[in-house]
Amino acid sequence: MKKQTVSSTVTIAYIGGGSLNWAARLMGDLAYDRTLPAEVRLYDLDTVAARRNAKIGSLLSEASDAAVTYTVADSLQAALTDADFVVISILPGSLDDMDADIRIPERYGIAQSVGDTVGPGGFVRAMRAIPMLAEIGEEIRAHAPKAYVCNLTNPMSALTGALYAAFPDIRAWGECHEVTKLRHIVAWLANRRVGGIVHSFRDVEVNVLGINHFTFVDKAVVGGVNYLPAYLDFAREKREEGWRAAPIDPANEFQRHFEDHNKVKFDLACRFGIAAAAGDRHLAEFLPQSWYLDRHEAFGFGLTPVDFRRREQAEKRRRAKAMEAGDALPPVVQSEEALVGQFKALAGGPAHVSNVNLPNRGQVEGMPLGVVVETNARFSGLGVQPLFAGRLPAGLEMVVRQHAERQTALVAAVLEKRRNDLLPLFLSDPLVSPIGPDNARDMFGEMVEATGHLLPRALGGKL
Amino acid sequence: MKKQTVSSTVTIAYIGGGSLNWAARLMGDLAYDRTLPAEVRLYDLDTVAARRNAKIGSLLSEASDAAVTYTVADSLQAALTDADFVVISILPGSLDDMDADIRIPERYGIAQSVGDTVGPGGFVRAMRAIPMLAEIGEEIRAHAPKAYVCNLTNPMSALTGALYAAFPDIRAWGECHEVTKLRHIVAWLANRRVGGIVHSFRDVEVNVLGINHFTFVDKAVVGGVNYLPAYLDFAREKREEGWRAAPIDPANEFQRHFEDHNKVKFDLACRFGIAAAAGDRHLAEFLPQSWYLDRHEAFGFGLTPVDFRRREQAEKRRRAKAMEAGDALPPVVQSEEALVGQFKALAGGPAHVSNVNLPNRGQVEGMPLGVVVETNARFSGLGVQPLFAGRLPAGLEMVVRQHAERQTALVAAVLEKRRNDLLPLFLSDPLVSPIGPDNARDMFGEMVEATGHLLPRALGGKL
Amino acid sequence: MKKQTVSSTVTIAYIGGGSLNWAARLMGDLAYDRTLPAEVRLYDLDTVAARRNAKIGSLLSEASDAAVTYTVADSLQAALTDADFVVISILPGSLDDMDADIRIPERYGIAQSVGDTVGPGGFVRAMRAIPMLAEIGEEIRAHAPKAYVCNLTNPMSALTGALYAAFPDIRAWGECHEVTKLRHIVAWLANRRVGGIVHSFRDVEVNVLGINHFTFVDKAVVGGVNYLPAYLDFAREKREEGWRAAPIDPANEFQRHFEDHNKVKFDLACRFGIAAAAGDRHLAEFLPQSWYLDRHEAFGFGLTPVDFRRREQAEKRRRAKAMEAGDALPPVVQSEEALVGQFKALAGGPAHVSNVNLPNRGQVEGMPLGVVVETNARFSGLGVQPLFAGRLPAGLEMVVRQHAERQTALVAAVLEKRRNDLLPLFLSDPLVSPIGPDNARDMFGEMVEATGHLLPRALGGKL
Amino acid sequence: MKKQTVSSTVTIAYIGGGSLNWAARLMGDLAYDRTLPAEVRLYDLDTVAARRNAKIGSLLSEASDAAVTYTVADSLQAALTDADFVVISILPGSLDDMDADIRIPERYGIAQSVGDTVGPGGFVRAMRAIPMLAEIGEEIRAHAPKAYVCNLTNPMSALTGALYAAFPDIRAWGECHEVTKLRHIVAWLANRRVGGIVHSFRDVEVNVLGINHFTFVDKAVVGGVNYLPAYLDFAREKREEGWRAAPIDPANEFQRHFEDHNKVKFDLACRFGIAAAAGDRHLAEFLPQSWYLDRHEAFGFGLTPVDFRRREQAEKRRRAKAMEAGDALPPVVQSEEALVGQFKALAGGPAHVSNVNLPNRGQVEGMPLGVVVETNARFSGLGVQPLFAGRLPAGLEMVVRQHAERQTALVAAVLEKRRNDLLPLFLSDPLVSPIGPDNARDMFGEMVEATGHLLPRALGGKL
Repeated sequence: MKKQTVSSTVTIAYIGGGSLNWAARLMGDLAYDRTLPAEVRLYDLDTVAARRNAKIGSLLSEASDAAVTYTVADSLQAALTDADFVVISILPGSLDDMDADIRIPERYGIAQSVGDTVGPGGFVRAMRAIPMLAEIGEEIRAHAPKAYVCNLTNPMSALTGALYAAFPDIRAWGECHEVTKLRHIVAWLANRRVGGIVHSFRDVEVNVLGINHFTFVDKAVVGGVNYLPAYLDFAREKREEGWRAAPIDPANEFQRHFEDHNKVKFDLACRFGIAAAAGDRHLAEFLPQSWYLDRHEAFGFGLTPVDFRRREQAEKRRRAKAMEAGDALPPVVQSEEALVGQFKALAGGPAHVSNVNLPNRGQVEGMPLGVVVETNARFSGLGVQPLFAGRLPAGLEMVVRQHAERQTALVAAVLEKRRNDLLPLFLSDPLVSPIGPDNARDMFGEMVEATGHLLPRALGGKL
Repeated sequence: MKKQTVSSTVTIAYIGGGSLNWAARLMGDLAYDRTLPAEVRLYDLDTVAARRNAKIGSLLSEASDAAVTYTVADSLQAALTDADFVVISILPGSLDDMDADIRIPERYGIAQSVGDTVGPGGFVRAMRAIPMLAEIGEEIRAHAPKAYVCNLTNPMSALTGALYAAFPDIRAWGECHEVTKLRHIVAWLANRRVGGIVHSFRDVEVNVLGINHFTFVDKAVVGGVNYLPAYLDFAREKREEGWRAAPIDPANEFQRHFEDHNKVKFDLACRFGIAAAAGDRHLAEFLPQSWYLDRHEAFGFGLTPVDFRRREQAEKRRRAKAMEAGDALPPVVQSEEALVGQFKALAGGPAHVSNVNLPNRGQVEGMPLGVVVETNARFSGLGVQPLFAGRLPAGLEMVVRQHAERQTALVAAVLEKRRNDLLPLFLSDPLVSPIGPDNARDMFGEMVEATGHLLPRALGGKL
Repeated sequence: MKKQTVSSTVTIAYIGGGSLNWAARLMGDLAYDRTLPAEVRLYDLDTVAARRNAKIGSLLSEASDAAVTYTVADSLQAALTDADFVVISILPGSLDDMDADIRIPERYGIAQSVGDTVGPGGFVRAMRAIPMLAEIGEEIRAHAPKAYVCNLTNPMSALTGALYAAFPDIRAWGECHEVTKLRHIVAWLANRRVGGIVHSFRDVEVNVLGINHFTFVDKAVVGGVNYLPAYLDFAREKREEGWRAAPIDPANEFQRHFEDHNKVKFDLACRFGIAAAAGDRHLAEFLPQSWYLDRHEAFGFGLTPVDFRRREQAEKRRRAKAMEAGDALPPVVQSEEALVGQFKALAGGPAHVSNVNLPNRGQVEGMPLGVVVETNARFSGLGVQPLFAGRLPAGLEMVVRQHAERQTALVAAVLEKRRNDLLPLFLSDPLVSPIGPDNARDMFGEMVEATGHLLPRALGGKL
Repeated sequence: MKKQTVSSTVTIAYIGGGSLNWAARLMGDLAYDRTLPAEVRLYDLDTVAARRNAKIGSLLSEASDAAVTYTVADSLQAALTDADFVVISILPGSLDDMDADIRIPERYGIAQSVGDTVGPGGFVRAMRAIPMLAEIGEEIRAHAPKAYVCNLTNPMSALTGALYAAFPDIRAWGECHEVTKLRHIVAWLANRRVGGIVHSFRDVEVNVLGINHFTFVDKAVVGGVNYLPAYLDFAREKREEGWRAAPIDPANEFQRHFEDHNKVKFDLACRFGIAAAAGDRHLAEFLPQSWYLDRHEAFGFGLTPVDFRRREQAEKRRRAKAMEAGDALPPVVQSEEALVGQFKALAGGPAHVSNVNLPNRGQVEGMPLGVVVETNARFSGLGVQPLFAGRLPAGLEMVVRQHAERQTALVAAVLEKRRNDLLPLFLSDPLVSPIGPDNARDMFGEMVEATGHLLPRALGGKL
């Protein structure tokens, strides 16, 4: 069957175009897909990295005969002007900053498995990133107000909220692939039932509701059949021992650090009667430490190894340089990201449904309007339209809502420079709250000091 | 390409199964489609008519080799028990009742082009139908709480609201095809541009927002291109003279009565900068008489001819009897209704998007939560999920909201038997309001008297 | 009993300090009261008038030995800086402008009894006044952000809304005495029952809900007894013939023009089962012309006589000049206004409850949040706090809400300079709607032209 | 000055009329006041206790020449029929039940200073009391739908919510005196400033916002002056050492157990910039244990001594019996309760403002509608009308809202018998959450078992 090709060339502005992760994946997917003619403008403060990606991207296009060209933009304005799409994938701080986000709380007895979403690390990371995203939002208002904008930067909820706070008419969504993990398990269950490898995760339609990295699924349909009851049974069966489709390769350091055994997912499913749909490391951070973080080894997941992140980053950079210098390109394969499908749908290709982060307009009942929630949305020529997703169970809703409200209040406090509201909000996080208000105040002071070089003066920083 | 067939047989309970219109269309579409194995249970107070339809339906199935069987249910409970789908298509009163709905207001100087949605006729029709639908809703709660329920009965907004008022967890939607009229025009414009018959109305994706029979479209996309600006240009060009794709056949009495020249549609588009998407006869009734109804001939549309309706009904019944008795069946063609596509999507077939009536959960911004609105919804294994549709222009929103709020208040007043609230609500309709409160009170009294045989005693009737 | 005196001198900035009506009443009430030491700064574009009032005010203070001084402020900023209270009583346009507001609609068949609140006259008056009030609101934000602000200018709802739109934290309320008219009737009924002149209108506590000039009362308590049932009986009894406590003096032109016979009030009470609480001339304008305006003579009230207004204004100015020149002052009597009581309460005197106009924060259930509503509020050292007032009957709520939403939408459209939204909003007014959209468009064009010298260019004016 | 006397005798139904605390105080206050002629009907399951109170009440009336009579009602219906006022002051369980509410959590490491509001004790107490209050609400709907209903029973928020859930039109409020504690301190500060005992707590008007036992005050006015800044200064000054107007009498066991040194109040004031207005023992329970409960001795407050409660109850009963038998009555003094003032205002006496618990209709911005909040309300012939109170600081609002939402969800879950929702709600309490989900589940099981004799079967009990 011939693939449907979008007829006219689209322009994509990539903010953070020197990225070693997301940009690489997008370039690969565009090369794999070959039906979306595009001009990609890479913009990055690190011009060398942007140039390197432009070179690699061009090589990938050539190799797969895709009508995708890559240029480097000199300025944000140059990248944005007349863009059809904008991708935002920046790093709010270096790995040193991330290290501080983890190590300072550690000294106060707070364990973080990721540290970039909620908890003390996520909070302070949001503090430094919100002004950056707000600035990008204002540039988009000025130079590309009709562009579709995909944010890939964490903390996703707060930063998508910052874009909307800066430019309420922005056509932005926050994109994250964590829910894919649950879809893989359901596909495995469906295949087990039919006795063969028939379904991929792409055949699993899930009804998503919650907030980024703390998402839930109350229906998971494969071929008209709802597998949620089967999943809940499976969770009960494997709750104690955990389960993975394939064992962790002990030689693979990445897997050792970042893969899990679904024990947190299964435990949450048993407690709340709904499937949790993100990696265990992410889920654990939204709940008091006594739930999972204190026993992370028993629950089979690790804490963020900034040291490994450093080595991994160096290795990725080394490989990118090698490719730039002429080394063989990796084979072009499709990633699990939805980005290219979303772009094509918006450009007039086949409609596409995936879970994204958007301000709540009612799609999650019981959550306040305006907070950023994650649900399915439909991408089509009509735009990005969230689908009504229903409501979370009562006890869980209380936990989710509290995080969403704190994220929203944090965005407002940062943008309105209400410094005095920050500590009370910080204090109300369930990872922070148990250490008591005095410790929390001291810890907050240290964290703000450590990241001060990226914080505006009005919020206690040095900018 | 092979059609995707839904694997297991679904059960459809059809309330009003003796219907001469909707039932016939559904039976034809099921026969045409051939991919949805179904058992259809027809239930009707008029058992003879239900039996006749069962016979005709069975003949259609046979003729087209569709796996669809028809039975007649003896009771509502028998029809509903274990049904996967419920269709509601009843007549709230006879053509004599409808005649009174039109002729009494006529004597008070109020012209109605349809009389079944808003205005005095729509109001009184709702008064007698709301208790009927509430009763059906309660039966569904008792016997088929998980069934998907499609309401086809007018007044659509009020009656869909009555179902939800009676059973808040009902999986119901209100189905109406009026928006198709606009999609046909846009398809014509798209074809004109490419210079050939390339697009059908099915290729036109529209973003629908409003309330039933007073719906609007702010985006109409064909192949990735938004034709709304082209449509607005066309409306400005043809505003005075009107336009139809094909001329009205003077020999066709139906066309003479019910077809229009899009003059109301074009006029509204010019005034509000958005496309109105229903037949002119429907649109006109939502606005004061001075706008269109007073000059309906100049605007090229007619007032409801109950007399023709009587002859038409008799003719349809005659034909049905003839088919039952062995006359040749009509050729099996696909209608423009979305019903079969919706059922298949819910049963695990390909996802389907169409505009339907649902309680507002936020899909139309600026409209109160809970009032019944019309927007696109996605039908899939995940259920019926409304898509966020945006907001109407300010001046228009005021008109739409007022109707929606009156419909909601009417449903509540009828179900809570608050008789004293009825006249003030009746009075607030823009067709009624100008005749003044005393005339309105007298007219309301006459209408209630005329339809009293179908009204509960607590609301001034004789039941 | 000794009067409680507020100890320290308060500063009152009076914007529109040359006023011949409101300023005179405030000066008289301050002189009568003698317990509120005040410095009153009069500011007016007409400096001569402000100076004249300062002179008269000083004479009144002297005569009654009140510690109130009057000065003339050279600029808005000078008046506002450090003010404790701000009074806003300006004229949005001259009597010529008002004349156009009335006469142009008259030519299109629209009768207006006042023309300054809703209907075409109120709408266009709001269009020119909203930017003025927004400017004052911004000056208050800059120079007196903590001041209590009393707005006396019509259209009250729209203009109080404009103050809040310009400065959301403003401590403003809109003040109007129309409800007093109902309290007088209830006092008369209470006195009739006890057989003596025991109660004044001040003894009647009413629960007010609605919007300015279209307010309603669902409880009217004198000495613990609710007289609403008695009032409704009285309204039914006097509905046809009307009633006044004292006959109209045929020699009194003011009375002939502005007094009514409560026929509209009684008629509304009978229709909706709740007491309408404003002058008949005001109430009539919120409903279609067929209700009362078409038969205003039969209903015993007159249409706005701009000609009389001109003579009355000249006469008031003549008297003011005479007083300035040394003519005898009028005797100092207490007016029926609540202003001084409100100021004293806010300054630490006894708490005070009266009906005022404020953005809805829930005090009127069923009305959207943020629209300006009229209910009781409590004035005390704690500030101005609206009292929860309950909900209007369903049919009436629909009418009230529609006006409130139009006012709110108008304020937003004017301040955001969305010119295209104005005509659709204008069209949706029940006095305008029946003349049809073409007439309405023409009439709107003429009215905007006539008042163009006071309208910003962006809205079709010449400023 | 002559006291204003309410003219006609009112009927008060007292549910829980054998009470040793509240009933005694009300009887004393009625005797002290002497201006409210009343017939008080005492109803109690413990008829002996009700009879004893009737005897004591009659003696008090006689002694002070108050027109108040006391009878014992045989049934709830007999007590309620035609009552003007209803007082509800029941015990949801015995001291043994309360003992279990405290001791079981203690074994899991959870300290509770009161245990009747939030935390595990408050939760389980609510579970058994909600059905009782709902039953009383339904009886009121049947027999006294127009009566004003004062609830004195804890947990106040949940139980006031239960009354409204059972009968949405109930005229009920929840009454609590904790805020008085802050008003005493402010009076002390005001007296210190003027250098004499001039002001009593009754002269302090406070703006209250929050939920019962976790209330806050953002304005505290004495004679027109806001003392909140002075209070915050004082809190900062005394934060470490604490402060009391008078030292605790070491011989007074009650004081030793229940009095505090305002250290929690002062600490919260410093952290959030707003005054906390309840006893320290109450405030502490709304926050994680690490804040105050873990160091309750350092913070100068005690944990609930059920043992003392037992001795105190026995002593009170002994004294009541003695009075019944003829012992000397205590001198009639005015308590600090607002009840009699509220009743008189509702009966037509002078208006009265005090802080009460009511469903949120907007009086606390930022809190969801419908949750029970505590703010000022005005009592008058117009009824009980909450006053708009504003909004809490962002970080604090998050904590308060979470408790309010849990209380509301708990009421719904209990009344709708959704047993599975209880544990997740229990788990989300900040005192419970840190012990982890497994411990929480076990603890909940034990507590439900212990109180099972008062719990409906559908919720895991034995009724």
